[in-house]
Amino acid sequence: MPLGLELTHIFDRRAHEKSEALAASRITWTTSIDEVLASDADVVVETVGGVEPAADWIRAALAAGKSVVTANKQVVARRGAALLTLAERQGRQLRFEAAVGGAMPIVRAVGEGLAGDRITRIVAILNGTTNAVLSRMEATGCSLDDAVVDARARGWAEADPRVDLDGVDAAAKLSILCALAFGLRVDPDAIPTRTAASVTPADFDHARRAGGTIRQIAHAEYDRTASTLTVWVAPTVVARGSIFSRTAGPQNAAIISGAHCGEITIAGAGAGGDATAVAILSDIVAIARDRAAIVPAPVLTSHFRLQTSDFVLAEAV
Amino acid sequence: MPLGLELTHIFDRRAHEKSEALAASRITWTTSIDEVLASDADVVVETVGGVEPAADWIRAALAAGKSVVTANKQVVARRGAALLTLAERQGRQLRFEAAVGGAMPIVRAVGEGLAGDRITRIVAILNGTTNAVLSRMEATGCSLDDAVVDARARGWAEADPRVDLDGVDAAAKLSILCALAFGLRVDPDAIPTRTAASVTPADFDHARRAGGTIRQIAHAEYDRTASTLTVWVAPTVVARGSIFSRTAGPQNAAIISGAHCGEITIAGAGAGGDATAVAILSDIVAIARDRAAIVPAPVLTSHFRLQTSDFVLAEAV
Repeated sequence: MPLGLELTHIFDRRAHEKSEALAASRITWTTSIDEVLASDADVVVETVGGVEPAADWIRAALAAGKSVVTANKQVVARRGAALLTLAERQGRQLRFEAAVGGAMPIVRAVGEGLAGDRITRIVAILNGTTNAVLSRMEATGCSLDDAVVDARARGWAEADPRVDLDGVDAAAKLSILCALAFGLRVDPDAIPTRTAASVTPADFDHARRAGGTIRQIAHAEYDRTASTLTVWVAPTVVARGSIFSRTAGPQNAAIISGAHCGEITIAGAGAGGDATAVAILSDIVAIARDRAAIVPAPVLTSHFRLQTSDFVLAEAV
Repeated sequence: MPLGLELTHIFDRRAHEKSEALAASRITWTTSIDEVLASDADVVVETVGGVEPAADWIRAALAAGKSVVTANKQVVARRGAALLTLAERQGRQLRFEAAVGGAMPIVRAVGEGLAGDRITRIVAILNGTTNAVLSRMEATGCSLDDAVVDARARGWAEADPRVDLDGVDAAAKLSILCALAFGLRVDPDAIPTRTAASVTPADFDHARRAGGTIRQIAHAEYDRTASTLTVWVAPTVVARGSIFSRTAGPQNAAIISGAHCGEITIAGAGAGGDATAVAILSDIVAIARDRAAIVPAPVLTSHFRLQTSDFVLAEAV
């Protein structure tokens, strides 16, 4: 491993069943979070999903003086500000590149790379599962149910893909991007969503005749003068030839618009263990390079008006 | 300005002619670098271009305990390793997002966002001027000379665009990316280049019949097992519909391939004052957020074989 990194503990509910695979190594398998917290590990990686108990464990890890890397979009969307404040106070880091966009480094792009601009809009495909389902329907003309079966067979969908299709997953990710890009505290549950679960082959025919296809789009545009955020997640007609129409399978893509930089496009693997692992490892490497780095907690405001806009894109993208 | 940033000095050969524009402000205009070095400024921004005296000034600024932000690809490509080592020893930072890709945050993407993967290949459009010229020839069928005149009129080309067309500019940027992605010390002058200055409308006809168009491509692929870097900059036929064929005007685009993450695409404004300003300001913000951040100097090796490959892409991109 680079930088002398060492994996010391694996905390897993079913550690006793799984540990044989790595039994020969010096890794401690445990079913006790307290054993991890009491260890001398510098970094805790959290990939369990769901708000609790994950948020509690992250809080405990930071309180124990450890930095934390998480892939958990729900925790970051709902508890991120408080946890980042705790991390800063502890002189530790909470990093979450894996929580949005898989391997495509959009958290760094929005939070750091474009910090010198005033970001005005983010339009993105943020859910790899739904994108795999919709692009499969487009390519084969099959029903949504058949496309879900196919995505599941390829490891791109969970047994129950509703949080993906309904937009709940993308809304959490969009909430994180709104905090990074606009400094807004957006409750993921307040983001208007329309489910992709009811999209039919006939909808695709209709979109095709209109010169496009259908993707689940996450849209956020902030009018600073009017303090108004136009935000939604919905299946949307996107123009043929656009970056979004060309995004197939479990890929993610985003167009970030800045007042000065114009449009920055970023795309890449949005789902899958490898993509998540790359993002997590990149965050671990960042911590290893500079253990005392300051990751300032964002100063978020709740003083804005949230609106939707009939779930259509103002212009062809 | 965010984070209480304040512009204190402007060092310019013709300060006396230019200073009236900002005479009312509290900015000190000077023709003396020593006045800047002796000031209490925390960060020095260098945008003069050329290796010397820029490298000397950066060295002096770091030695004086200041962090440095530069847009100067030649300095970073040719003196970057030594200057980054000096910065690290001084406990200061040398940041250079603006040196490659304009506003598109490729330095962070390669150096940090994908640090958890093993990057195997970078294929990119890295010179906005040449891209504006070639995409203009494609769109209008005009000669290269006419396209250069047009690019100049739009502010996308200097009086003498040879370093752009010949690939010298892109080679310096590619050298920087090879250091970040592969840990290789690549002399920009050793990168094989073929000029775009001799591309004709007939070449575009030929490319069109072959199902593509022409762009100046910067290509670097590292075979770690064989320690062999295949690297070049040249006008190249790219497939119609590819990200590169759709990159028009002064845009830049890159496909970064990782052993685990697959292909990450990033695209955006590659030339122009606004794009450069966004990248520079983002670096200044990073320094302001964490003045003691450690930006480790890359450990580079010269033990590799450099080869070219007839300037063609191994696969349609």
